[in-house]
Amino acid sequence: MNRLSLNQWTTRRWSVAEAVDGCVRHGIPAIGLWREHVAEHGLDATAALVRDAGLRVSSLCRGGFFTGEDWLEDNRRAIDEAAALDAACLVLVPGGLPDGSRDLAGARARVADALSELAPYAGQRGVRLALEPLHPVYCADRAVVSTLKQALDLAPPEVGVVVDAFHVWWDPEVHEQIARAGERIASFQVCDFLVPLPADVLLGRGMMGDGVIDFAPLRAAVDAAGYTGDIEVEIFNADVWAADPDEVLTTMKKRYAELI
Amino acid sequence: MNRLSLNQWTTRRWSVAEAVDGCVRHGIPAIGLWREHVAEHGLDATAALVRDAGLRVSSLCRGGFFTGEDWLEDNRRAIDEAAALDAACLVLVPGGLPDGSRDLAGARARVADALSELAPYAGQRGVRLALEPLHPVYCADRAVVSTLKQALDLAPPEVGVVVDAFHVWWDPEVHEQIARAGERIASFQVCDFLVPLPADVLLGRGMMGDGVIDFAPLRAAVDAAGYTGDIEVEIFNADVWAADPDEVLTTMKKRYAELI
Repeated sequence: MNRLSLNQWTTRRWSVAEAVDGCVRHGIPAIGLWREHVAEHGLDATAALVRDAGLRVSSLCRGGFFTGEDWLEDNRRAIDEAAALDAACLVLVPGGLPDGSRDLAGARARVADALSELAPYAGQRGVRLALEPLHPVYCADRAVVSTLKQALDLAPPEVGVVVDAFHVWWDPEVHEQIARAGERIASFQVCDFLVPLPADVLLGRGMMGDGVIDFAPLRAAVDAAGYTGDIEVEIFNADVWAADPDEVLTTMKKRYAELI
Repeated sequence: MNRLSLNQWTTRRWSVAEAVDGCVRHGIPAIGLWREHVAEHGLDATAALVRDAGLRVSSLCRGGFFTGEDWLEDNRRAIDEAAALDAACLVLVPGGLPDGSRDLAGARARVADALSELAPYAGQRGVRLALEPLHPVYCADRAVVSTLKQALDLAPPEVGVVVDAFHVWWDPEVHEQIARAGERIASFQVCDFLVPLPADVLLGRGMMGDGVIDFAPLRAAVDAAGYTGDIEVEIFNADVWAADPDEVLTTMKKRYAELI
């Protein structure tokens, strides 16, 4: 349990204060924060709250979406926030194709350029960037970076990567790419892949054990690669969001102990 | 137009006789047949009908699903049918995880074993097997083979592969893997990837031009790899199935001419 982290979106209706309190009550030592929730509570107040509660901030979610008009300013703000929160990394979801565009190669080149532009700014502030490859089903609308190999190839070496079980479990090369990633693994996130997916494929992330992923080999690979950071549970799921957050945390701890 | 093929599932409510007649009326020189439709019309009668109409059979869909109890018998029957129809290939959809299983590596090994067992039988009957990697969103329930690279690595060299734009468009390595495939490309299928996907992700295949795929680079890559066979339009889409099949064929020819 000493590496378990609650990604705040798993209990998204909880405010920062409620989520921090929930982690403390359930003995969860780390939290992955979301910028929306942090903004509501206030940046400095959140930093103080988390620090006083003795929690680690395993990640701040999220920057990225490099096709937006104000992407550079927005990502610089996200880096500043990650620094203020002493977050272990800033998760970057790269974004999909620009509206109406079919230029996938161009969109991918743009991600590489954006990362190169952001990396020095992050370095100066001591913030670790973590590029997250998303499942290929989101390639068009959310993340043109679809595999761990591609993320490692495309990002500057000082930029880390997120290994999210949901996004990578299907990849025939995931084990060798996790080994290759080594110290570049900045975050390990877990949740299950539900079959069938719900109507909104974004919400196909289930509690560990409710889907088709065999977590043990992924956990072993991430361990073998040398990752010793927190393991975040990040679930986008209408049923989980509708449930009592305290029950979600109880189930999460149980499944984590059994499966992760 | 001399390489355009109607995959019969695009006009699935048409019988074999109606689809053959439709191809002739619309000047489409080839057809991809489905075993269900063929069984209804009769195997020998279908072979005679297609031959008399002067159509090529660009593929027979489909064998595979190697986790079923009678997979070996069923796939041998499919091979016999492909031989009787003089089909350019038998498309193999490998199947997902067995019910309740999370052993992805095991399921993939089983596909390799099944292909090795089937290949000599197909070779003796002059039938070309074509393993189809499916989009990773179908990994659990339909195809544990998710990329062209994986298909080429896993199948014996005499087994070909299907390049289906819908399934491979997102793959960062698709161009190098198409080049690597070369003569192993047994079929090239096209349809578009719709965003957002419909509630049933199986039906997210759209008419070319209705989605996010840039077909020109894929077509160029397949050409450069030396593929000179038919180009099949295979669309799984509730709206297309509800439309008048003659209108579907008219649109298909227009979009094919413009985009493929």
